[in-house]
Amino acid sequence: MRILVFGGRGALGSKLLSYCKQKEEWIIAAGFQSSSDANENVVLTNRDNFIAQSAECESQLVGLQKKLNLEPNFLDAVVCVAGGWRGGNAASDSFIQGCDDVIKQSIWSSVVAAQVASKHLKAGGLLVLSGAAAASNPTPYMMGYGMAKAAVHQLTKSLAAPKSGLPENSSVACLLINTLDTEQNRKAMPKADFSKWTSSEFIATLIHKWTIDASSREPSGSLVELKTENSKTTMNIV
Amino acid sequence: MRILVFGGRGALGSKLLSYCKQKEEWIIAAGFQSSSDANENVVLTNRDNFIAQSAECESQLVGLQKKLNLEPNFLDAVVCVAGGWRGGNAASDSFIQGCDDVIKQSIWSSVVAAQVASKHLKAGGLLVLSGAAAASNPTPYMMGYGMAKAAVHQLTKSLAAPKSGLPENSSVACLLINTLDTEQNRKAMPKADFSKWTSSEFIATLIHKWTIDASSREPSGSLVELKTENSKTTMNIV
Repeated sequence: MRILVFGGRGALGSKLLSYCKQKEEWIIAAGFQSSSDANENVVLTNRDNFIAQSAECESQLVGLQKKLNLEPNFLDAVVCVAGGWRGGNAASDSFIQGCDDVIKQSIWSSVVAAQVASKHLKAGGLLVLSGAAAASNPTPYMMGYGMAKAAVHQLTKSLAAPKSGLPENSSVACLLINTLDTEQNRKAMPKADFSKWTSSEFIATLIHKWTIDASSREPSGSLVELKTENSKTTMNIV
Repeated sequence: MRILVFGGRGALGSKLLSYCKQKEEWIIAAGFQSSSDANENVVLTNRDNFIAQSAECESQLVGLQKKLNLEPNFLDAVVCVAGGWRGGNAASDSFIQGCDDVIKQSIWSSVVAAQVASKHLKAGGLLVLSGAAAASNPTPYMMGYGMAKAAVHQLTKSLAAPKSGLPENSSVACLLINTLDTEQNRKAMPKADFSKWTSSEFIATLIHKWTIDASSREPSGSLVELKTENSKTTMNIV
């Protein structure tokens, strides 16, 4: 399977890459840094220009496609686990900066992933985006973050609708993670109950399963909330 | 009443300014062009840098506040009717450009309006943002537009929540307009049924009423859908 991962150097992305590598899948990592676990890398340099960033992504993908002598729709899955978190309300000194960051981290990456899927995903392929369970409700304490993730949720619904521009029979899902169990989060919240946090292993396994087995996927357009209790994760489809 | 309007040169904004002028309110118009109907203008020059745009807005407002010897929270209402429309799905050649545009037009303007409200709105003041009825559903034919407006809807909910950073007893509403009855829309859709379009006069009257009479407002955080049938507009609170 050919899988393109945006954000392959993040906590979740690196787990996904190593899991897929172990399963002997062929992986492109797209992001600001290359990954040694990927077969190929698309390294982006434009952090502040949306159009330039999407153009450099596309030109490198077309370059890879030609180098490897593949058809244009050569990808089985496009997965965007790029992102980031920013806190603060409308009165925060860093409100605008935080909004600017989350727009780039979550909205730009999701939109570029959607464009890549429209151009390079196979018929029947899979697109996975990253949302947030919290964004289904008001998020005054992380106002920009909730806003950006709500945008990704609505984008998911549009991508699953007829005439979205995605290839035939493709499927899109948005993962609504509550808290990811990462080293960084354990350091930031040392007193939290880690048994309620979702492991990146679970998510990597899920995405891989969806990629190789279309019948295991939730209906296209699903917002798939991952809820973890006593270290056991269940899915709640929104 | 002191009212700040973002987007005062648009079809809806210019009607709102002329209506408020007629009612002898004191108006600041904020946007890329000045308005002769406003008492004061905040002219923005940074179209491509979110942080610089918000900073120039804030510095001009503080300048006005000092020039006029007012308290920092000197505004009765902050209204954002800035915006724009872009069509196209994920496969459109202009997909990224369109998303970039609507993020700036709808998300940046709403976020800057929220920041201004947190700094300069009076206790019990009003913040009005502009959403879109269509964004409550998938919008594959205008993918970026629906995504950006969904972000504004969620932002509205966060702003109405406790500890949002807005002043005490202030109220926020988001207008979900279906189609605005403008000259431009009549030219673009000459065969449409104009009796289903909402007049800017109706909206200007509504915003003015909410500004001067807090008891007339919908509950804070309301998404106020305006539905027009036979040239009669009703409100549907989401």
